[in-house]
Amino acid sequence: MRTTSVGVVRIATKGPGDVSGLMTMIDSGAIDPNDILAVLGKTEGNGGVNDFTREYAVAALCTALAPHLRLSPQEVEHRIAFVMSGGTEGVLSPHITVFTRSRADQGTAGVAGKRLSIGMAHTRDFLPEELGRSAQIAETARAVKAAMGDAGIADPADVHFVQIKCPLLTSDRIEAAGARGNKTATTSAYGSMAYSRGASALGVAVALGEIAPDIRDEDVLRSHDLFSSVASTSSGIELMHNVVIVLGNSASSASEFEIGHAVMTDAIDSAAVIAALSSVGLGIAPQATAGRELVNIFAKAEAAPNGSVRGFRHTMLEDTDISSTRHARAAVGGLIGGLAGTGAVYVSGGAEHQGPPGGGPVAVIARLPD
Amino acid sequence: MRTTSVGVVRIATKGPGDVSGLMTMIDSGAIDPNDILAVLGKTEGNGGVNDFTREYAVAALCTALAPHLRLSPQEVEHRIAFVMSGGTEGVLSPHITVFTRSRADQGTAGVAGKRLSIGMAHTRDFLPEELGRSAQIAETARAVKAAMGDAGIADPADVHFVQIKCPLLTSDRIEAAGARGNKTATTSAYGSMAYSRGASALGVAVALGEIAPDIRDEDVLRSHDLFSSVASTSSGIELMHNVVIVLGNSASSASEFEIGHAVMTDAIDSAAVIAALSSVGLGIAPQATAGRELVNIFAKAEAAPNGSVRGFRHTMLEDTDISSTRHARAAVGGLIGGLAGTGAVYVSGGAEHQGPPGGGPVAVIARLPD
Amino acid sequence: MRTTSVGVVRIATKGPGDVSGLMTMIDSGAIDPNDILAVLGKTEGNGGVNDFTREYAVAALCTALAPHLRLSPQEVEHRIAFVMSGGTEGVLSPHITVFTRSRADQGTAGVAGKRLSIGMAHTRDFLPEELGRSAQIAETARAVKAAMGDAGIADPADVHFVQIKCPLLTSDRIEAAGARGNKTATTSAYGSMAYSRGASALGVAVALGEIAPDIRDEDVLRSHDLFSSVASTSSGIELMHNVVIVLGNSASSASEFEIGHAVMTDAIDSAAVIAALSSVGLGIAPQATAGRELVNIFAKAEAAPNGSVRGFRHTMLEDTDISSTRHARAAVGGLIGGLAGTGAVYVSGGAEHQGPPGGGPVAVIARLPD
Amino acid sequence: MRTTSVGVVRIATKGPGDVSGLMTMIDSGAIDPNDILAVLGKTEGNGGVNDFTREYAVAALCTALAPHLRLSPQEVEHRIAFVMSGGTEGVLSPHITVFTRSRADQGTAGVAGKRLSIGMAHTRDFLPEELGRSAQIAETARAVKAAMGDAGIADPADVHFVQIKCPLLTSDRIEAAGARGNKTATTSAYGSMAYSRGASALGVAVALGEIAPDIRDEDVLRSHDLFSSVASTSSGIELMHNVVIVLGNSASSASEFEIGHAVMTDAIDSAAVIAALSSVGLGIAPQATAGRELVNIFAKAEAAPNGSVRGFRHTMLEDTDISSTRHARAAVGGLIGGLAGTGAVYVSGGAEHQGPPGGGPVAVIARLPD
Repeated sequence: MRTTSVGVVRIATKGPGDVSGLMTMIDSGAIDPNDILAVLGKTEGNGGVNDFTREYAVAALCTALAPHLRLSPQEVEHRIAFVMSGGTEGVLSPHITVFTRSRADQGTAGVAGKRLSIGMAHTRDFLPEELGRSAQIAETARAVKAAMGDAGIADPADVHFVQIKCPLLTSDRIEAAGARGNKTATTSAYGSMAYSRGASALGVAVALGEIAPDIRDEDVLRSHDLFSSVASTSSGIELMHNVVIVLGNSASSASEFEIGHAVMTDAIDSAAVIAALSSVGLGIAPQATAGRELVNIFAKAEAAPNGSVRGFRHTMLEDTDISSTRHARAAVGGLIGGLAGTGAVYVSGGAEHQGPPGGGPVAVIARLPD
Repeated sequence: MRTTSVGVVRIATKGPGDVSGLMTMIDSGAIDPNDILAVLGKTEGNGGVNDFTREYAVAALCTALAPHLRLSPQEVEHRIAFVMSGGTEGVLSPHITVFTRSRADQGTAGVAGKRLSIGMAHTRDFLPEELGRSAQIAETARAVKAAMGDAGIADPADVHFVQIKCPLLTSDRIEAAGARGNKTATTSAYGSMAYSRGASALGVAVALGEIAPDIRDEDVLRSHDLFSSVASTSSGIELMHNVVIVLGNSASSASEFEIGHAVMTDAIDSAAVIAALSSVGLGIAPQATAGRELVNIFAKAEAAPNGSVRGFRHTMLEDTDISSTRHARAAVGGLIGGLAGTGAVYVSGGAEHQGPPGGGPVAVIARLPD
Repeated sequence: MRTTSVGVVRIATKGPGDVSGLMTMIDSGAIDPNDILAVLGKTEGNGGVNDFTREYAVAALCTALAPHLRLSPQEVEHRIAFVMSGGTEGVLSPHITVFTRSRADQGTAGVAGKRLSIGMAHTRDFLPEELGRSAQIAETARAVKAAMGDAGIADPADVHFVQIKCPLLTSDRIEAAGARGNKTATTSAYGSMAYSRGASALGVAVALGEIAPDIRDEDVLRSHDLFSSVASTSSGIELMHNVVIVLGNSASSASEFEIGHAVMTDAIDSAAVIAALSSVGLGIAPQATAGRELVNIFAKAEAAPNGSVRGFRHTMLEDTDISSTRHARAAVGGLIGGLAGTGAVYVSGGAEHQGPPGGGPVAVIARLPD
Repeated sequence: MRTTSVGVVRIATKGPGDVSGLMTMIDSGAIDPNDILAVLGKTEGNGGVNDFTREYAVAALCTALAPHLRLSPQEVEHRIAFVMSGGTEGVLSPHITVFTRSRADQGTAGVAGKRLSIGMAHTRDFLPEELGRSAQIAETARAVKAAMGDAGIADPADVHFVQIKCPLLTSDRIEAAGARGNKTATTSAYGSMAYSRGASALGVAVALGEIAPDIRDEDVLRSHDLFSSVASTSSGIELMHNVVIVLGNSASSASEFEIGHAVMTDAIDSAAVIAALSSVGLGIAPQATAGRELVNIFAKAEAAPNGSVRGFRHTMLEDTDISSTRHARAAVGGLIGGLAGTGAVYVSGGAEHQGPPGGGPVAVIARLPD
């Protein structure tokens, strides 16, 4: 029986503070603000430490949604999962993707096959010394399973994208660990972002049975052959626990959308992008497949750590003027944009243990014909 | 009768000063330095005004070739056409492409169809006040026809890529024009590069009959609907005339290579890239076509001047941290790299009148099976 | 008789969205929010077109002040003049300077000499075709005189810094002018910022008698010898008129602060910075002058348009990786920071007609001993 | 008795490949190429890993000097110490400083006081696993003493600037160490540059008695209170040993130049710059001191690792668009340029153990009146 209905809509933005598109849909009744579960966005900052477009976008959305939800902006931020990925290099276009979930309407008897489903879960708060280590991995794995349950997904093969928000270390947090006589995985705030992202991704891999559960602390950021094919993680200063968003297909969903994915083995893996499109019945742009429509693509990108792509040297890691994450997003965004026929896709950087080294997961959501 | 043999080889470089790959091929006899006609390279600078990797690469090549040609480095620079395009953003990989031409050997009777041919020509020196205007257009058109003759190409449809080096204005040159009572097209050195590139590209379009010959000065950089589908132009401070390199197919060539092209209508035009590959018998990577092999792809890229790609806003033109040319090369390089299966492709920025606004020509050279 | 009391306080910020410092002072009663007339801030973006830290900072301040003023955030933005200058390169430190004005308390009889005063005025809305031209110059001059009146300043020699917010052109505005059969000064949005800043600065120069009033449209951005020694202008998209803030000394002010200024003739004019400090009784850091304290320094910086500083070539204008405004702020910020003993100074870029080419005004506010 | 004569001349360059200034002086006889001992230069690259202007400048100088010295370019590079520092941010101006040494002429009897002297020495080649550790420290200390002897300097107080070129690790070198069963200080090529610079600077400090000789491996890059007040070190890929250049004053020199120094405790330490100028009889620009003339200033700059300068937050370390070394050079270059009255000064980044954290040494060479 179809119990939930999941909606997803991509909305272009005119700037990081622009909420007009979402407000118009709420005012017209197209979106019920109470149904909003998560918002994934691309904002036009540099995607680095000093990218303030992410917090600005979240602040603008929370302030705009607050009166509609009769909550304070702070309460909105706790209720809805906002994940903003900075960096719209090249053809990438700033936008937000809004996920809603509600009870299924009557009349879903005609819906066939598994449909798009979304589930969420939180871990407990972590101690600073747990970040980037086995505790974060194990707790994340547990939360992924809980989110699968929330999404009505039993089979790991039905999970196609797991987006995680995770904490990072600050000097205060590092000191607090030290006061307890404990050392953190790193003493660099910037470096801790990679540790937290990596451990979170490994947690996804453990939960889905992609790797064995006995991951050691030393494997994080070192054993590059351990990875999840569907994890996408980003760290932020505003929380001390992991927020897990599972996207997949479920028989309990009456959604008119479907999700699929593939894994890019490197940054020029056009075959993987085509396979991901194909998995939801789409082809290379312009998509001719009758009735099916692309909603959005979600992918992770990174510069190959070994300095080359298919035997040819790349220069992303040696560029003192442009960070490698900006290079990687621009290039992978160009490829995916070209195959998708649009630059309004979610390509995010920093892919530790998210796909193989230099590659990353690529998931596609399609709207099915009525 | 096949009178000439044209060779082309792509050589990876370890840095802008690295000439070891070419020297190894000369030492082994694979390349006769006397046959070298032109070298097109991608160097790893920023591709902007202060990109010194281009002149460094040319200086290193001239110094290394000088003893082999029994010429001074300065004489080498005049004898061989060196065109260095700065900027290997994203997956783009630094390399040079060396074009050679020699008399055809005996035994070319079995060669079928038109084959890769190369021709060169020079315009007269321009006055500074002629740059970016009709004089430069007309003289370039004349030189393109001469280069076609040199290449043994009669039909404009057999021309697939025209690479041009053209002058730019300096304050000295602007003053010299002023002393004659004449105004230059612009008083900005940087701006003059676009004028010179644009007028040169229009010259190609006139020569090939792509547009009517009556181009007015006001059309340069303004009438965006006037363009050549095969022109690729770059301006440099070291010369006052245009150097024209025509690449096409000719029945007089005994080359084992073939060239084709298509036109990207925007930066995400995957169909055009696929068509260009297809025009020389290649498919999307990994190319399965029996016996045929990709040698290199030559393309121009630019940020769409209207600020959007297929209706979605891009942010390339508003980025104060990364120039739009770097964004555009990264994105188009990602797309072409993905479809070609290699980042060692020649994607160059600054595409005034070279393809439609936001788009550009894309040419492919393939090696035929023996 | 002393009729007004002007206060000024510099508050460090932890990020563009940080309002905690100001809120603490309001909560403690140190600042009455109703007295706030203007806020000048340095935010840590790139200071370019895509610097969103400025609007984020204004949005955060308006949202935080709204309940204290019983106004909506939009109304706060209209009531208080917010001028945010992006770019804290080098040692520059993000901060805001809050100016307050209230009726003078009793007991100002002992106050000697002219003291810090602030006045404001607005021009009428401009037509797009008036920007960067004589209409904007003349109206600005009129508003400067009105703001001087508001500040209780009669003698132009008592004016030491005039901060102006001015409009810019957008494509909509340019089209609107076209629909009326009129051409705008430029068709580039980015270029219009310089035109508007330049015309506004010339308006200041006219008002203060620094130049003759018969400025022609052609002089804007061309006649570099026409400039104001105290103008600091910045253009923004959110308004169509000029907001003028005059800072000077007045006998009607009972303020415990004093302002002075000098003009930097180039970016390394340490003598001018020392003279500006000296004009309010301060020396090179560490300031030993009894009782007097530095509050803040306000300066404009730009890369010398002729490409050299005192005969030595600079590379700011040719750098494709870092915009010249960022270079100039970093260098002038380093000099002023070194002489002032603090990086929390207001150094802003884009100095058209604001001081001589390559130079700019530098004003200093000091707190006098009790 | 005066046995040597040391000359020093600063020559502006028009680009990294420009050798015309030096060639003109050689052609005119002003410089005897055989006397050239060392060349310190500022080139206009980004100063980072992918700054090719340094090697381009060295290649151009070696090629140009080769015929004059009847050596191959490679031999020139071994004979003369070339130290190129990339990055001319802000007002910094590209130039080279050429140091020459020859036997003193007759008629030096009238020369009073200690005068500018230069000495050089080399360490033995290091094993990769020795870099950044006590072996490099001890060997460098020994070489500093040897270079002092070469310069005719006995008293450490007469040493005012020690410039060192030192090796870095590459993946090949790291593997070679591993093959011997040894671990290197770091496995990052980029990171090894800091280790090598730091250990070399500590070697200077040991040699001059600034710190005790018992430095442990763990102190390198960690014990920030250990530093030399006169060390300036830069690492390069082209050598496996340290080249040490000592600059000081000696009674055996008949030079018409004098050198002095001070230590900047932070990036805005104007007092230290003034003290350094004063130590050779110069004042703040414009220098009025009779007869004495500024030749050049040599300084190291870095962003304060604790994130603030005199209590105010700086944003250099969080900027993903501009590296902190570029910020720091721009700011310190602005301050020194302002006090010196010229941007043609040598300000170099990366100051590990070279001065206190966030600060660095600043040395001044003056020409004495005849």
